[in-house]
Amino acid sequence: MENLRVGGGSKPTGVAGAISAVIRTDRQVQIQAIGAQAVNQAVKAIAIARNYLEEDGLDISCQPSFLKLMLRDEERTAILFTITVAEDSSM
Amino acid sequence: MENLRVGGGSKPTGVAGAISAVIRTDRQVQIQAIGAQAVNQAVKAIAIARNYLEEDGLDISCQPSFLKLMLRDEERTAILFTITVAEDSSM
Repeated sequence: MENLRVGGGSKPTGVAGAISAVIRTDRQVQIQAIGAQAVNQAVKAIAIARNYLEEDGLDISCQPSFLKLMLRDEERTAILFTITVAEDSSM
Repeated sequence: MENLRVGGGSKPTGVAGAISAVIRTDRQVQIQAIGAQAVNQAVKAIAIARNYLEEDGLDISCQPSFLKLMLRDEERTAILFTITVAEDSSM
């Protein structure tokens, strides 16, 4: 599954565009975010992507989980959003 | 649909317990959060609730959207998470 990394400075509309593009082809995508600011940008991006995908007759839902990562020899906990096409959205 | 409010100081495990309780009875719940810290706590709570509900053979997914609210005569944008039982989880 394609994995996008979102940072605290990521632009939600840009990330939403990337989510939408991957969803249109792969029907699923993962987003990884570390820290409150990054998680917030990721959530905004998912909300915006839902609007972008509405034109395609698609809706998405996400499932967050914790992901332990080693960054510069330090253990960090990321949030991993697994995003899939919602069951009730049309093809 | 029951609506829970999460703040930046909310304890994710506590919110996760509340989400799980409502999901077990109603199969759906909404969470409202304003600001990056609150959104982050809400996402952590949803991730933890997924673990709590695993014992019940249930999984949840969420759909974030923007919600405009008036707070003390000021317009604020909240994130509204609509949480439902995932299609592929067993009864």
